[in-house]
Amino acid sequence: MTKKERLLEDAEIRKNFPLIRDDEAYLDNAATTQKPQCVIDAVNEYYQKHNANPLRGLYGLSIAATDDYEDAREAVREFINAGSTEEIIFTRNASESLNLVGYAWTADHLQPGDEVVVTIMEHHSNMLPWQQACKRTGAVIRYIEPDKTGLITEEVFRAAITPKTKLVCMTQVSNVLGRENPIKRFAQIAHEAGAVFVCDGAQSVPHMPVDVQDLDVDFLAFSGHKMLAPMGIGVLYGKREILDKMQPFLFGGEMIEYVTLEGATYAELPHKFEAGTVNAGGAVGLHAAIDFYKKIGWDRIVEREEHLTAYAMEKMKELPYVHIIGSEKPEEHHGILTFKVDGVHPHDIAAILDSCHIDVRAGHHCAQPLMKYLNTLSTSRASLCFYNTEAEVDRLIEALKTVRKDMGYAE
Amino acid sequence: MTKKERLLEDAEIRKNFPLIRDDEAYLDNAATTQKPQCVIDAVNEYYQKHNANPLRGLYGLSIAATDDYEDAREAVREFINAGSTEEIIFTRNASESLNLVGYAWTADHLQPGDEVVVTIMEHHSNMLPWQQACKRTGAVIRYIEPDKTGLITEEVFRAAITPKTKLVCMTQVSNVLGRENPIKRFAQIAHEAGAVFVCDGAQSVPHMPVDVQDLDVDFLAFSGHKMLAPMGIGVLYGKREILDKMQPFLFGGEMIEYVTLEGATYAELPHKFEAGTVNAGGAVGLHAAIDFYKKIGWDRIVEREEHLTAYAMEKMKELPYVHIIGSEKPEEHHGILTFKVDGVHPHDIAAILDSCHIDVRAGHHCAQPLMKYLNTLSTSRASLCFYNTEAEVDRLIEALKTVRKDMGYAE
Repeated sequence: MTKKERLLEDAEIRKNFPLIRDDEAYLDNAATTQKPQCVIDAVNEYYQKHNANPLRGLYGLSIAATDDYEDAREAVREFINAGSTEEIIFTRNASESLNLVGYAWTADHLQPGDEVVVTIMEHHSNMLPWQQACKRTGAVIRYIEPDKTGLITEEVFRAAITPKTKLVCMTQVSNVLGRENPIKRFAQIAHEAGAVFVCDGAQSVPHMPVDVQDLDVDFLAFSGHKMLAPMGIGVLYGKREILDKMQPFLFGGEMIEYVTLEGATYAELPHKFEAGTVNAGGAVGLHAAIDFYKKIGWDRIVEREEHLTAYAMEKMKELPYVHIIGSEKPEEHHGILTFKVDGVHPHDIAAILDSCHIDVRAGHHCAQPLMKYLNTLSTSRASLCFYNTEAEVDRLIEALKTVRKDMGYAE
Repeated sequence: MTKKERLLEDAEIRKNFPLIRDDEAYLDNAATTQKPQCVIDAVNEYYQKHNANPLRGLYGLSIAATDDYEDAREAVREFINAGSTEEIIFTRNASESLNLVGYAWTADHLQPGDEVVVTIMEHHSNMLPWQQACKRTGAVIRYIEPDKTGLITEEVFRAAITPKTKLVCMTQVSNVLGRENPIKRFAQIAHEAGAVFVCDGAQSVPHMPVDVQDLDVDFLAFSGHKMLAPMGIGVLYGKREILDKMQPFLFGGEMIEYVTLEGATYAELPHKFEAGTVNAGGAVGLHAAIDFYKKIGWDRIVEREEHLTAYAMEKMKELPYVHIIGSEKPEEHHGILTFKVDGVHPHDIAAILDSCHIDVRAGHHCAQPLMKYLNTLSTSRASLCFYNTEAEVDRLIEALKTVRKDMGYAE
């Protein structure tokens, strides 16, 4: 692609995002993404034309709201190639999806002495629920350490799996290192050992095609707000045969079939796991976000993000005081560039970049055990989305050049 | 108020609601309300101007998003007169709020043999979490029955309280009967017995001023979507001294202070109970809804809803085959008119009314134990909001007059 073609494509894509402006470089996409106008419009249209409590009413509006909600579920099913809409549970966000499994699946499946395998690179949301489940059930966590570039080899993975392993919990893409784990292969090994495999897709589903049938994971969690959709809507994919046997998590509303003073029987999938009034407006927004992904196309999205990652790494490597954490290879970062600057605290970096209208994250990125393993308390992170541009990366680089000087270091 | 003044006020209020039209009578407000344009606009403005992941970023946008989110918390605090924003937890909806208490408070506070007092008039969302908590902990539920008009006398309430009572769970306004329970008095009695009082405010907070310090309840749950706000945002109020001692519910994200491979210490209130990325867009919508309530004013809201309820009951009572469930007095219905029509199934009523563009609910209203107590499986329910009008009630009445004829009965 020529420079001119890229600039044209940049403009074509960015005009869809009302918050994205040329005078502010938003580079915190791993935290949350900006929203295209079509997503905002779709939610508006829902509230202006179709709003009612879905699944419950027999009148036209409620049926329209139900259709909107269930159409969104079908769009999600297709997006991740699930076998059935019964396997798509709408939640609030990826954290809630993981907690749902952490409460509802573990209660009936973990016994004292059972083992749960978790990597130390997990986001807290994919670590704490399992620590808590083990505390409640007497199961034991076994942690897997990657090497310093984020690589978990098959040998290391196999060594963690024992006949007692009942559950493996792993992110597809690390929110700090950007590295992709070989989920398909690891799920296969876990299954051979009779374990269930939970995949945190929060950082993968927004950035690459994810096919749950191909990966053969038992659960996949992700958030709408990290993939152009509004906040407050997330997804838990689960295999039907597993969800069918699980007890519910939250109780009340349409998740029941029949209630007495003694107890209840529960609704069919997926409603069994959706207590209270559902977030139809949020689901409609997620549907519109998925449509936008399809309109732009995975080929372009992946090409743009890979190109930008490589471009940014190349430029950052020219600055001897900037150190990118993880792999040397751009294709192993998926847009996530966590870095240190010699002698400058990440919070100061973020503050100086903010003064240049460049938005990056500073801190532990909700992955304190990984920080500890990397011998640091805090890092900076620039995370890219397909709507970012070379010009924004250039601004980041120019600002990084001033960071040490601003903190009083001689050149 | 003269007829003309009322029509002017109707028009003034209704012009704010894009979905509300004169050719459709939306009378399912106890399920969810419609949204004023100012709420839709506020959410849009958040996503178009301030969107970022709140609470985490050090850059301008994230600080703006944090401010929006925390301003919404302060608006909620003021709306229910809580003592501190630390006592306002944002959840997805009232059901989740109640489940949060059902998991997190009960785990450390209920022992085998302890008693939990629940009324049979509760929405499933305020019954199933306690049934489940009792199942997990060995505590026992004692149910309170109202009389057929929905009245629970102090005598009946006191009879249910024993030295073993640890928890009382009660709705402020029944979603079927519309009757208000004397929460302040009952909370006082529960406290004298050393019990904690959980109030379901889903049907009260949207329709009357609720002051948690005056009521002195320990927990109050309600949903944004039933009070003009978007779906996907709800509130749990809890007294600080109780929340402080409670274990968290959902794990991950900003609810931690520090995480190791062995466990975690938790963030201060209210963040301890808000796992994962928060729904700032939803909170902004709830804030705008509260501002709209304040603009219209409780005096007008209550006057309009009381007037309409009385108007509707008077008209319905003129139809000998229509039977309103609950109290004879309009002021004891708070806009909720659940009814039966001789010889016509509620689903047929809803379908016939739908053909006249009148939206009412048919079914068990997520309160099957109450339905059983009332010797019915299913009822119809018209539920009013302050934006409804006499003309809409007239349409309901005219349509109800045709329902029996449509089903083949002679007049």
